[in-house]
Amino acid sequence: LEFSPGKLKVTIVGAGLIGTSLGLALKRLGASISFADLDPSNLRIAQDLVGGAIELEPDLVVVATPVGASFEVLKAQFALHPQAMFIDIGGLKSKLINDVEGFSALAERFCGTHPMAGREIVGAHAARADLFEGRTWIVTPTHVTPDSVTQEISRLLTAMGGFVLSMSPDEHDRAVALVSHLPQIMSSLTSSTLVGAPLTDLEIAGQGLRDTTRLADSSAHVWVDLLLGNRDAILKVLESTRKSLDGLVDALDRNNRDAVTSFIERGNAGRAVIPGKHGGKSRSYTFLPIVIDDKPGELARIFDECAEADVNVEDLVIEHSPGQQTGLITLALNKEDAVALHEHLLQKDWRVHALRESR
Amino acid sequence: LEFSPGKLKVTIVGAGLIGTSLGLALKRLGASISFADLDPSNLRIAQDLVGGAIELEPDLVVVATPVGASFEVLKAQFALHPQAMFIDIGGLKSKLINDVEGFSALAERFCGTHPMAGREIVGAHAARADLFEGRTWIVTPTHVTPDSVTQEISRLLTAMGGFVLSMSPDEHDRAVALVSHLPQIMSSLTSSTLVGAPLTDLEIAGQGLRDTTRLADSSAHVWVDLLLGNRDAILKVLESTRKSLDGLVDALDRNNRDAVTSFIERGNAGRAVIPGKHGGKSRSYTFLPIVIDDKPGELARIFDECAEADVNVEDLVIEHSPGQQTGLITLALNKEDAVALHEHLLQKDWRVHALRESR
Repeated sequence: LEFSPGKLKVTIVGAGLIGTSLGLALKRLGASISFADLDPSNLRIAQDLVGGAIELEPDLVVVATPVGASFEVLKAQFALHPQAMFIDIGGLKSKLINDVEGFSALAERFCGTHPMAGREIVGAHAARADLFEGRTWIVTPTHVTPDSVTQEISRLLTAMGGFVLSMSPDEHDRAVALVSHLPQIMSSLTSSTLVGAPLTDLEIAGQGLRDTTRLADSSAHVWVDLLLGNRDAILKVLESTRKSLDGLVDALDRNNRDAVTSFIERGNAGRAVIPGKHGGKSRSYTFLPIVIDDKPGELARIFDECAEADVNVEDLVIEHSPGQQTGLITLALNKEDAVALHEHLLQKDWRVHALRESR
Repeated sequence: LEFSPGKLKVTIVGAGLIGTSLGLALKRLGASISFADLDPSNLRIAQDLVGGAIELEPDLVVVATPVGASFEVLKAQFALHPQAMFIDIGGLKSKLINDVEGFSALAERFCGTHPMAGREIVGAHAARADLFEGRTWIVTPTHVTPDSVTQEISRLLTAMGGFVLSMSPDEHDRAVALVSHLPQIMSSLTSSTLVGAPLTDLEIAGQGLRDTTRLADSSAHVWVDLLLGNRDAILKVLESTRKSLDGLVDALDRNNRDAVTSFIERGNAGRAVIPGKHGGKSRSYTFLPIVIDDKPGELARIFDECAEADVNVEDLVIEHSPGQQTGLITLALNKEDAVALHEHLLQKDWRVHALRESR
């Protein structure tokens, strides 16, 4: 078994956002794609986007249906194409892997997967070939999936730009309860609180409200299966959330300044444990703000100074508004380098400002 | 009284994010700016960004301190500059306006304001001259503020790009409880639930978690005053939120599919009542998806067809991924135009897809 993406023949069942995006991404790698979908409108868009309806005997079957249908579709596809390999892309893993393990002939040709990619709009029309680029793509093999199958699948997911991470089905479901299902619930909860509010109050809504409620646009059809299918893990998470909310209500009720402060600070602490992209460790930088004139070459001069001071710049942010004569550049460095550069720039009469520690 | 921004002399007390951004925005209009701040680091960044320390006798004093300090600073500034006009920029209005109305000589020269603009990072280093552009800027005059003063202030806020909206202090505080304080609380709540979670679970965090917790980076120092100062209105909002959360927990506990579906759908409904930008009414469009080839001139051809069909395109989204041979363009139109254009394009053999109704 060795997939060569350029020769691969793939059947994708479920031409929604993920299925169609997978089709686009695999097509870009040279694969041939056929789609199946119960919704003729989705199917036609997917076929139009990826390049017309074709018939093929698949090497790989991707089941990209809602999670409730995955197992039945897998069994039906296995009956049709017993020589193919199989993956799904569903957001829940424990139950499916358990079901599949009951059919060892299928289980030996199957690897569960879940791309941590999505949009709150769904359907083929929202598909993008680059949907998976830079995203974590979890694989959950069954107990009998051969390593060679898991490796081939992982290679293919990597070729589509994913960062492959192997997890057990239970670990996966516990993790998504926290990092995916909780944000969805909190966003829907915030948004549902707006229903019935005076419309004049909503007129002043800014970006904060829009950002925190963006996920609330998600489809109930998709989410009801995910929430019910993972209810034990979700209830455990919500227990902690509800306790914090009760604590805040109590603190406000009793005008308790320390408790309200702790509530916001605990939110700060939560942000600090979210890792950087691609599962990298959360890093703490020291920030060095420098006011510069808005003229050509100033940035280059800064970097010359960094080279002279022999320091390594990890990141930078430029704050500059149109029509403004000065800009603020903030360099992110490790602490030692930041202290050294601060000293160096002060001696060279740059307008440097106090170092700040934070993420 | 007539402010000419080019000749205006302004003292800004509080060189944080809003104060310094105001300085940059007013400077761009030609005003002279002096800053005051208890924090020498903030003060020096603000002065560097806006153009050095200057002394002036102000026509306008902007109090941009944390809300807890506003009234004391206003009184002190009024004693120093009894001929000036005064505004604040604080996030709470009822108590301040009430306090100021106890000093009618000050109240006659004062208009409360609150720009619905901010960032989760604070301090002078985060300032931007364009922070207020396109943002709602609420004015809350006192009972004795002359209309001429409110109008002059409004003209100045408009010149900085704000959309001025007049509200009573009570209306303001009730509205911000819902559209500003609730999102902050929910974001902090989501984020605080992450504290103590297994780090491996957090490794798969995606954009959804990052977006819903972005506000949780906010400063406890700023927010404790806002939450305590508006606790009655906030508690009323949270009562409804808590009821919905309890309802969801109960629905999950009892595996109640209808109730979980309703929960997500109520979130959908909440999004639908958030107006478009600048307080415009929420609009519903009909969407027409068209698959096009990725070659020059295709978009122009679409717009030629729109002109021929005599329809008005309200908005459009282009979905196109690098390396893909086709793209999807989705036009937003009113329903009548969408139906007409759909028919027109079908006859011309464009790859049009089914119309969708939604926001």
